[in-house]
Amino acid sequence: MADLPVVTYRPDPSEYAWTFGGVEPVMKVKPGDILELWTDDCFGGLVRGVDDLPSQLITAFNPQTGPFYVEGSGPGDTLALHLISIEPARDWAVSTTFPLFGALTSTLRTVTLQEPLPELVWVYEADRSRRVVRYEARNGDYSVELPMDPMHGTVGVAPAFGEARSTLVPDAHGGNMDTPEMRAGTTCFIGVNVEGAMFSLGDGHYRQGEGEVCGVAVEGAMDTVLIVDLIKGRMTPWPRLEDHAYIMSTGSARPLEDAFRIAHGDLVHWLVEEFALEALDAYQLISQICESPVANVCDPNYTFVAKAPKRYLPSSEVYASAHRRLRETAQAYRAERGLA
Amino acid sequence: MADLPVVTYRPDPSEYAWTFGGVEPVMKVKPGDILELWTDDCFGGLVRGVDDLPSQLITAFNPQTGPFYVEGSGPGDTLALHLISIEPARDWAVSTTFPLFGALTSTLRTVTLQEPLPELVWVYEADRSRRVVRYEARNGDYSVELPMDPMHGTVGVAPAFGEARSTLVPDAHGGNMDTPEMRAGTTCFIGVNVEGAMFSLGDGHYRQGEGEVCGVAVEGAMDTVLIVDLIKGRMTPWPRLEDHAYIMSTGSARPLEDAFRIAHGDLVHWLVEEFALEALDAYQLISQICESPVANVCDPNYTFVAKAPKRYLPSSEVYASAHRRLRETAQAYRAERGLA
Amino acid sequence: MADLPVVTYRPDPSEYAWTFGGVEPVMKVKPGDILELWTDDCFGGLVRGVDDLPSQLITAFNPQTGPFYVEGSGPGDTLALHLISIEPARDWAVSTTFPLFGALTSTLRTVTLQEPLPELVWVYEADRSRRVVRYEARNGDYSVELPMDPMHGTVGVAPAFGEARSTLVPDAHGGNMDTPEMRAGTTCFIGVNVEGAMFSLGDGHYRQGEGEVCGVAVEGAMDTVLIVDLIKGRMTPWPRLEDHAYIMSTGSARPLEDAFRIAHGDLVHWLVEEFALEALDAYQLISQICESPVANVCDPNYTFVAKAPKRYLPSSEVYASAHRRLRETAQAYRAERGLA
Amino acid sequence: MADLPVVTYRPDPSEYAWTFGGVEPVMKVKPGDILELWTDDCFGGLVRGVDDLPSQLITAFNPQTGPFYVEGSGPGDTLALHLISIEPARDWAVSTTFPLFGALTSTLRTVTLQEPLPELVWVYEADRSRRVVRYEARNGDYSVELPMDPMHGTVGVAPAFGEARSTLVPDAHGGNMDTPEMRAGTTCFIGVNVEGAMFSLGDGHYRQGEGEVCGVAVEGAMDTVLIVDLIKGRMTPWPRLEDHAYIMSTGSARPLEDAFRIAHGDLVHWLVEEFALEALDAYQLISQICESPVANVCDPNYTFVAKAPKRYLPSSEVYASAHRRLRETAQAYRAERGLA
Repeated sequence: MADLPVVTYRPDPSEYAWTFGGVEPVMKVKPGDILELWTDDCFGGLVRGVDDLPSQLITAFNPQTGPFYVEGSGPGDTLALHLISIEPARDWAVSTTFPLFGALTSTLRTVTLQEPLPELVWVYEADRSRRVVRYEARNGDYSVELPMDPMHGTVGVAPAFGEARSTLVPDAHGGNMDTPEMRAGTTCFIGVNVEGAMFSLGDGHYRQGEGEVCGVAVEGAMDTVLIVDLIKGRMTPWPRLEDHAYIMSTGSARPLEDAFRIAHGDLVHWLVEEFALEALDAYQLISQICESPVANVCDPNYTFVAKAPKRYLPSSEVYASAHRRLRETAQAYRAERGLA
Repeated sequence: MADLPVVTYRPDPSEYAWTFGGVEPVMKVKPGDILELWTDDCFGGLVRGVDDLPSQLITAFNPQTGPFYVEGSGPGDTLALHLISIEPARDWAVSTTFPLFGALTSTLRTVTLQEPLPELVWVYEADRSRRVVRYEARNGDYSVELPMDPMHGTVGVAPAFGEARSTLVPDAHGGNMDTPEMRAGTTCFIGVNVEGAMFSLGDGHYRQGEGEVCGVAVEGAMDTVLIVDLIKGRMTPWPRLEDHAYIMSTGSARPLEDAFRIAHGDLVHWLVEEFALEALDAYQLISQICESPVANVCDPNYTFVAKAPKRYLPSSEVYASAHRRLRETAQAYRAERGLA
Repeated sequence: MADLPVVTYRPDPSEYAWTFGGVEPVMKVKPGDILELWTDDCFGGLVRGVDDLPSQLITAFNPQTGPFYVEGSGPGDTLALHLISIEPARDWAVSTTFPLFGALTSTLRTVTLQEPLPELVWVYEADRSRRVVRYEARNGDYSVELPMDPMHGTVGVAPAFGEARSTLVPDAHGGNMDTPEMRAGTTCFIGVNVEGAMFSLGDGHYRQGEGEVCGVAVEGAMDTVLIVDLIKGRMTPWPRLEDHAYIMSTGSARPLEDAFRIAHGDLVHWLVEEFALEALDAYQLISQICESPVANVCDPNYTFVAKAPKRYLPSSEVYASAHRRLRETAQAYRAERGLA
Repeated sequence: MADLPVVTYRPDPSEYAWTFGGVEPVMKVKPGDILELWTDDCFGGLVRGVDDLPSQLITAFNPQTGPFYVEGSGPGDTLALHLISIEPARDWAVSTTFPLFGALTSTLRTVTLQEPLPELVWVYEADRSRRVVRYEARNGDYSVELPMDPMHGTVGVAPAFGEARSTLVPDAHGGNMDTPEMRAGTTCFIGVNVEGAMFSLGDGHYRQGEGEVCGVAVEGAMDTVLIVDLIKGRMTPWPRLEDHAYIMSTGSARPLEDAFRIAHGDLVHWLVEEFALEALDAYQLISQICESPVANVCDPNYTFVAKAPKRYLPSSEVYASAHRRLRETAQAYRAERGLA
């Protein structure tokens, strides 16, 4: 690996970050660096069996690997993170219900006087060679294999205005967006609010359904490789994603229609910026072509993703072709590592 | 067509229905009947060019073909409508902005003091042989072909409690759900509230993006063929859909998270009913496998669809295999008609 | 009562209306008529003791007295109803919890997988001479007298667009707004959508807290007297109220902020219409003077009231002084009847 | 002032805090201390005339006086702040519209494609002897005096989970609740999350309407006196208030119904804690007696207040009579200072 600037880092639990912002960096990295990282699961690895109840074991969720200080970055820039690979690091994963958390329960905000749902743990066997996880009902004997689709629930930077936000929260700084689109092959563009950007990531999911309905995905530790890049002098208001087929805007807010509005409004503005369409023409085009997967309907803010298929756009190049260049670097890395 | 009980009906504009409920039936049909219908577009065909502003021409939207009185049906039953084919009936279609309607504008409910967006019309050329529509920017010269994906925005029955609802509204009776899942090959299960069920349909879309962002899809008249069936003595609380790969629940409400909750809660209950899973096991399974396309974020209620892939369920047969049987009838019809 | 055109009407239960719209009128009345009416409680009088569970006894709520056809009225007019008196007609009233209804429980729309709250009935003794009702805890021995503040939960007309709406629903046609401002001394201005207006009222509350938190007020039958008036050629978009000290706009929608936006947006526009303030000046003034009681946070739409104290407005006369004139008639009626 | 432990502090602008949490304390205080403070307005005093546009002058809002480290306090305790007096410190105040902020405009979260409303400044003359402010229309000549009702928009402590939140945000830590109930004579009970509590306050309003509709009240600097007290070993989940006539819970969230649910759910639980009512009996009582003023419908979270009149409760003493004792101290202070 002579040519590629690879940095390897596996945090000790004492080094985990539990907020975006308000934390000292674990190291400095440079634009162009390739980071080989390990991230723990949302429970810090403490929930391993059906008797390990999160409410008794856990006081904070989503330990982060990072934050990383990106040299040369500051407010008004855009950080580009290209995810080369996200690989399950264990042969098991877990999901649970959690009292007063999830889409189909009252919560600490959607308060009712009803009893919370029971707290249950489901343990998933993870077969990394066959790339499946196994669901097993807690009651009765139904069991089924589900394909892995590894992703990170949390990717984010330090927020603006001096804020520090829990790693449970998604907002304009990224954070706990919980979108399956944050998978290998994707580039994440995210606006920098503070010197050094201070990005971190964690909360690996071996797979999840849309909306993360019960509030907890198939949660597991990850070995993740990503490239850090920096776009100077261009602000990105909400996290944006790009893969080979789509450009995507995200929005995180409550009620859920506001998350939808943010994401789709940003996608309209993005088309105007990049392709010189007029706003209403972009609005019309998006209205007929967008795909709009909901990411989470359980976190303190809900998250929507608005996707425009590149094949229907005036051009498939955005951010001055950053994604294409990062993908070439990723291919070089994969070639050197002997990966498919 | 000796064997199949086919009924053909094309309404005169004077026969259009503008509400679900509160309208006399246009005819009686029997379970098993195959209906060959024509539906007008959401503007009643009056918006044909860029100078035809809907706000000046239209006072009611979504004319319905129907309602049809289904013999033998009554409260507590489920109507099953299997869509055999939905074919564009014109070589053009339209979309527009409409003052104070859509996801990215203030509305009559999300009131602001800002000026409405300009009202614009986009005319789409529809090439039925190549199955594409052509988007053309109103300003500048960008143009692109988009594949057709014909569907009905409105399918519904008379509501409960003696209500009559505008055909702009989706709710438990169906109505203006605006989901692309309402396409050929799908069976729609819908609870009957009144004697005769009184179903109607309309609002054909040659295609739409998820969420129907600007409030108006690529709107066009349709030639639609469907089979009417009846499941006696089984209630369906919210419209459910089934195709070859998915079972789907819908929910329509505001805020958007309530539409999500209704759809996903119903899907959990449906799994419990059909497969004897315990509720929390079904909740967990849905949380990891569901796909959750948003249907509309513009109508008086917003609509979500919650989809469970059949391949991950204990069985792919629901409603006593009604969908499979209807599909066989549809194949017989298509064979007799010489259709693919 | 030689001078005043008084009409007396007490419906038989078979004459109750259960929707706004879609119902034949019980009689025709003329602008200027004084109506002496009786209205049943929201349960049709069927819940009388702690063992009378509404979910077992009731299939429809809020029986209406009416509808009344107002001669000469049609779309584009405003109906003015001045409430002369609203007097409890019984010496008892009831409140209950109701499964999946209320602000602090999951509902049929805010769906969760939790068990419903228990269904309980509280019976209130009503002392009409002392004008108090008595709360008694179902468990334990706490008891307290609360002052009566009689009001109607439902006042409305037939909706627009051919709709018929359940009497549980508030919307632009009025309906189940559940605001304590609908008390004696108030004039209600409401837009007419159909020939004859077709207004009705019911759902008397001997008192309620703001928001009608558990979904059920202190419910009771009422003897109500009101004056019917008509303002030709002036449309009112959402129900407006006026009393001696305030002009008030209402809004009913979900989420609750939209009810707030409708009410306050309408109040801004009303000031612009009546006083020729510029919109942003009216916005500023309202922002510093409004009182904004929430009416209900339990019905299918939530309701807010936006109140502007007349003493801070350019004038205390709106709708060409209709309220003042109706109040004079009310005083004449009260004088003739020997009322205070 | 020999007997009372008075601390006087007026911050230099360089000492302002712009977040709750993440800031070093300006000083340590002890339970029992009386603080005489000065707070700047929400614009840091920079908006003084109609040409001082906030969007051009201001990058952060709501400068705080504090934070104060309260000796002996830590997580699980409740801080009690009794507001002895809040006196306008200037003879002028301002209000404005601000682009994409307020209840009747699209915002950065409720995104639309419409143009923002114009940014305007209204300057209010404040007559401290007559205790009125004067509204003057920017267009036309309408002008009216409005009574002062001085209050603090922001009172809060450092949040839980290591978060730091912008002083624009209200949440469980207090912050920018913008409720007129935060006036002289009120005790604010607020849960402590970190050692020292770290409370601060600011954002004085000479008056505001309910909901702070346009997003900006009549904003002004304040001279404020308060007593600091500490209740060890009792947690308070959301800020609670008490005055001579009411106990009050608050909730801050989106959508607005969740703020309502939090506040009223907390009030129910509070009655259960203090008076041993059963939860459903408390729910019923609150449903018939509560007053529920909306505080703000413009900030990143909206705020509701749920008020229970003490005269209808089993006792008027809560938190072991802390409010009554603090009021006695306040009277002693006022007597020594020769205040009314």
